[in-house]
Order: sequence, then C-alpha cells, then structure tokens
Amino acid sequence: MQIITLTTDFGESDHYIACMKGVIYQHAPNAQIVDVTHFIQPHDVVHGAFVLRQVFDHFPDGTIHLAVVDPGVGTARRLIAVRYEGQIILSPDNGLVSLVHRDFAMEELREISNTRLFRPEISATFHGRDILAPIAGHLAQGMNLEHVGPLINQLEILNLERPTPLPNGGLEGQVLYVDRFGNLISNISHADLEATGARSGGRFSVHVGPLRIGPLRTTYGDVAAGEIVAIVGSTGMLEVAINQGNAAAQLRAAPGTIIVVR
Amino acid sequence: MQIITLTTDFGESDHYIACMKGVIYQHAPNAQIVDVTHFIQPHDVVHGAFVLRQVFDHFPDGTIHLAVVDPGVGTARRLIAVRYEGQIILSPDNGLVSLVHRDFAMEELREISNTRLFRPEISATFHGRDILAPIAGHLAQGMNLEHVGPLINQLEILNLERPTPLPNGGLEGQVLYVDRFGNLISNISHADLEATGARSGGRFSVHVGPLRIGPLRTTYGDVAAGEIVAIVGSTGMLEVAINQGNAAAQLRAAPGTIIVVR
Amino acid sequence: MQIITLTTDFGESDHYIACMKGVIYQHAPNAQIVDVTHFIQPHDVVHGAFVLRQVFDHFPDGTIHLAVVDPGVGTARRLIAVRYEGQIILSPDNGLVSLVHRDFAMEELREISNTRLFRPEISATFHGRDILAPIAGHLAQGMNLEHVGPLINQLEILNLERPTPLPNGGLEGQVLYVDRFGNLISNISHADLEATGARSGGRFSVHVGPLRIGPLRTTYGDVAAGEIVAIVGSTGMLEVAINQGNAAAQLRAAPGTIIVVR
Repeated sequence: MQIITLTTDFGESDHYIACMKGVIYQHAPNAQIVDVTHFIQPHDVVHGAFVLRQVFDHFPDGTIHLAVVDPGVGTARRLIAVRYEGQIILSPDNGLVSLVHRDFAMEELREISNTRLFRPEISATFHGRDILAPIAGHLAQGMNLEHVGPLINQLEILNLERPTPLPNGGLEGQVLYVDRFGNLISNISHADLEATGARSGGRFSVHVGPLRIGPLRTTYGDVAAGEIVAIVGSTGMLEVAINQGNAAAQLRAAPGTIIVVR
Repeated sequence: MQIITLTTDFGESDHYIACMKGVIYQHAPNAQIVDVTHFIQPHDVVHGAFVLRQVFDHFPDGTIHLAVVDPGVGTARRLIAVRYEGQIILSPDNGLVSLVHRDFAMEELREISNTRLFRPEISATFHGRDILAPIAGHLAQGMNLEHVGPLINQLEILNLERPTPLPNGGLEGQVLYVDRFGNLISNISHADLEATGARSGGRFSVHVGPLRIGPLRTTYGDVAAGEIVAIVGSTGMLEVAINQGNAAAQLRAAPGTIIVVR
Repeated sequence: MQIITLTTDFGESDHYIACMKGVIYQHAPNAQIVDVTHFIQPHDVVHGAFVLRQVFDHFPDGTIHLAVVDPGVGTARRLIAVRYEGQIILSPDNGLVSLVHRDFAMEELREISNTRLFRPEISATFHGRDILAPIAGHLAQGMNLEHVGPLINQLEILNLERPTPLPNGGLEGQVLYVDRFGNLISNISHADLEATGARSGGRFSVHVGPLRIGPLRTTYGDVAAGEIVAIVGSTGMLEVAINQGNAAAQLRAAPGTIIVVR
C-alpha cells in the first residue's frame, strides 16, 4: 500500500482533514494515510518545517508527504512537488521543506500546475483539498511525477538561525521548538556540540537565559524527578528538560529563548 | 477496502474511540476506518450535523458514516440507518443527518433493531460501541442494509435558522460554526448571496454585529495580515476571517452572532 | 492485516507518533495501526493502565498493543513483551499492564533484549521509536515472540486501591478516572456492587464526598438534563455523571475523590 502522510495546522475539530482524506480515497482507495500532526501552530511555517524534517527519515522509500501550513493560500504563492531521496513532498512553496532540503539530496522539483488533475471546482482557501489531495491520490495510483507540472529550479528556503561559536569556546543557540512535555529543543545539533568539543559528562555546561543547567547528561532520569537536565535528545539536538516535569513552563522559555553551551 | 468514517463528541483522551474501532475490526478486519473528528462539542447535534454535511460529498460511493453525538443515549430515541446517494449513515435519530438530508436524495431509511447483530451485552450508555460499531462491521463485510431492521418513514430533522431577506435588499444570517482558525462560518450560502445579487467586489458590504467588515472578497490574502475579510469560504458559505489571525476571538463572535449583508 | 494499537502520553502536536508509525511501516508496510490515545496524562501510568485495560477485550485475537508511558526511559527499567489470551502487549515494565494482568491469563512474559531487532542507533529518550516500534513491526511480519528476548518470571504491578466494605453494609471507593465528558468513573465494579446487594433502583444510595447523589439508575437520561446521576457505566464500573453536563467540574471531583455506596 502507498503511504501518504499529512502534516497541517488544521487541527482536528473541523471537517478539513476528513475532506482531504475523502478526496485522496476517491482517487486511491487503498492508500495508507498517516496523520503526522494537524496541530502545527496556525500559520507557523518554521514549526511545520521542523516536524516534517523529523518524520522524513523515518518513513519508507516512496512515501508521499502532503504538508499544508499555508498563510498565503489563494495568493500568488506556488504549490510544489519535490522529490528527496525517493520520497515526495507536496506543499506550498513557502519554506516548509527547508529543513529536509538542508539535509537530503533534492532529485526533482516541479511546480504543480496541471489543472486537469485538480478537483473540478477550486476554492480560493482550501488548496489542500482541491489541489494537493487529488495530486497525492494520482501519485499514489502510480502517476509519474512529471505530470504535475514543469520542472522549476528555485524554491523558497527559510532563513533559520544557526548557532554561533563564542569567543572563548562554546556555542550560542536558541530554542527552536517546545514539545508536548515542555522539553526545549534547541537549534544546536549533536554535530555542533562535537565540533565544539562538548560531550556528555564533559567540562561544558548548558545555560538557558541566565540559568545554569549543568553539564550535558544522557537521559532525563540522570537527575531526580523535578530537576533540570540538558541532553542530546531523540531528535539529535541539544534539549533542556525537567525530569517528569515541564521545562518550558517552569523556565518561562519558548522558541527564541537563548541557550548557551560553554 | 470498505471505508467507515467516525464522527463523534468522544474526544481522543479516553478509550471510547479505540473500543469502537476494535469492535469494527472484530467484524471487518480489513475495514479502512477514517476519523472525521471526535471533537464535536459535547452533545452539540448542530455541530455534528454541520461536519457530517461537509465531509459527506468528499467520500467515495459506498462509504459508511458512523456518527455519534447522542445526549439521549439509553432513552427511547431510535438508532437509524439511512442511505443517501450510495453512502450510508448510522446514527441516533436526533437530527444529526439534517444537513445531509436537506442536500442529498434519501434512498432508504431503516430503524436499527436487529438485536442479533448487536454485541452480546448492551450497555445503557455506549450504543456506539455496542450497536453501531458491529452494524458497521457487518455492513462493511457486505451485509445488505435490509438486515438492520424495518423500513420506517420518518426521522428527526433539526429546525435550523435560515437567513432572512432584509426589506431594502440584503440578508440577515448568523454564525453557524467557528473553526480552528477562528473563522466565522455563517448560514448564508453562495446561492443565497447570488439570489440577493451580492458578489465579490460588488456594492454589498458584510457586517458582524455592529462592525462593518467591508465588501465580499475572494481569499484571506486579499487583505493585509491582521485585517478582517469576508469571503465565500471552502464550505460554500459566507465566512468572516482575519488574515493570519482569529476572528472569533477578536470580534468576540460565536455561533448565533448576527451577520448581515446589505 | 495485522493490527497494532498505540497508547501513549506523547500528545499529537509533535513528530513522535509519526516517527513510531514510520518505523513500524518500514518493517511491516501492511500493518493496520490504530491510535488508542496519545493523551494519557504525561507520565501517568495509572491512567495508561486503565485505558489499556478498557481497550484490551475489544480487539481481535492476535492484536499487538504498543503502550508507552515511560517516566523512566533511559534508566534501568526493562522493556517487556507479554502475551495475554492471544494478544501481545509491548511496554516498559512499570505497571502499565497491571489491569490487564489482573483480569486476563498471562501466557508468556519476556524481556525485550535482542538488540539485533532494534534500530541501529538507540537514543536514550525514545525507546518507543527505537526499540518497541521495530519489535512491533517484526512481530506483525510473523516473527515468533521468543526472538525478542528471554523468558522472565516477574513484572511490575501497580498497587491500586480497591473499594473497602463499610461496617453497616455498602462500599467506600474512589474516582479512578475522569473522562472527556467529566464523568467520574470509580474503582467500584458491577461485581463489587452485586456482592454488596446494591442494584439499580434499590435502597442503596451513592455519595460523592459530602453530596448525596441518589439511587443507582440505568442511564444518563434517567434524570433531567443538568441533574446528577449514578449508574454502572459502559466500562462496567460505578460512574457519577451529570446528564448533558460535566460532573467533574460541577462537583469539583478528580481521581482520588471518595465515592460511597450505602
């Protein structure tokens, strides 16, 4: 069965997601549709790009990812179909693919423009249902990617902050993402830490704003329940958490809060 | 694969939905179960009827829709199976089908009463699991609809407000539904607007309570971010939104708030 | 198709669930994955055990249940695979299986330790993705349970309060669980009530803290909308509800609140 994933900011209380799924099934009755999440913060393309990057390398070859966080729906922004290492992303051309683009080899980039594949009536505000869902359905049924529209050679990439080296060694980064547990996931990667010489149990310490967290550790349970800990998390990024608690709430931290390793 | 959709007010934090799915799979191991939403406002049959209508025409022929918003569970209200244009709805007889009923041709209406198809023990408070789920499973396995129970010739229909024409031209309607983005979806349809002569860019203006929104436009992005806009949305209804913002919060509007086009 | 259920406290706004599903599909492309819930209260093993018990007997023979509420992830706690009456549970060994264990016959208990089945890189904080998901995938493809690791003969069981008989007859129990509707589900079972002689319409009355609710009834609609009612609910447990209202909010009750039948 062909897997199609959905990543949107539509929430789950309305009819929007089911309408997209219904349209996909109209074209591809045996598709395996997987909800990644529909709780991307409304209109937050950075959040969408982060989640799409995280799921991307966990899915099998041939997966189709349909991603819709689309503040510009109905305006001149394009819709694109991009293939990276055997998987396809369908999305508005607004930077949603930025983090996948950074880490995987792009193989094919097309503008979605073949109106014969769209639904007969196109609303101005729901291109996920009227354009991307039928395209995903056609692709799931084996249609070649070339039919969606012409090759193009440029796409929007978000200008995301990278951690910066500090004069005396160490790194200054920031919180990129807060997860359901209140864990603060930073933009400092395992590789960034290694380049600086920081490692678990080493002499470097981690700071969130004015607060010193302590050395890098391995897992939440390395500190007592309720205590703060810094680790390289399951995303491969430096993460600050409270064991069995909520770091974002307790430290009043959010995306953009400065994290320093020194 | 046979598609079965679920629309309920059960939420997703309890075991209720999974119990229904397990029972369906016990009867129809290859069913394709699609969650429409489980976040219908508790006991809000109007909300359920709206969502069911929206999804109905996006699903393929033969789809079975199981809808449970059931404040009267365990009392004398009936359970019904209704076929409209090749799709079947299973639900309590409390008006949930009202908007599908208004817009699609009813082909068959039966009371669900064949206890041999029910689970062996029937709770007083969870007929979705004990009656509707096994019925859906049997139908998905090819059972003919006539086995669920006898033909009946009446069903409950909600008495929903329709927009009313104003003396000097124009229409007075109200907010029917607020979606995840805070968009105000009214009970004024594209056809209602056309009958009045209102169209995008025309001389009519839209008002929410005392506030003048402006003329009808085409999409959210026709105004700057943060500004209010009135369009015919993807549901085919007049909708008031704030581009990249939340109209319900900012205008303090909710279902029932008056919307006027004049 | 092989059914795999997921019960976690991961929420649905992050990438975590989709990563687990992607890994399962990498091993078992035709698995039927069912979300039980991802809204177990963070780190609340009792809540997880209750939900897992409720869904367990609604699923077909051969179902694999993957349950992750894991405050001890990355510490010395074991991961286990347990078979009860033809269904398999994969989870941390922290008591999540307690209520299934109480009510079903255990057939096989193994520690998950065969690292050749794990993902190549194991994070310290996401064993659901790195260990349990590939194990579930292998089992779904027909791998025998014996390959996950050696038989063991002990597992963690939660020490959950049981209702206690009162001197003059009757029972004192407590709220075990509050559902989405605010219904108070107690730890007093239908069988406990029968042993005491309490039955619907009998002379016993139900009390929540200082408040007398009244006699046992059959369904919510046995009282007027907005009134309080005590019934044996669809879980088979004594339940206190407000017809079309929210008992937890109105009675300020929560897990642990005392419920007395006398």
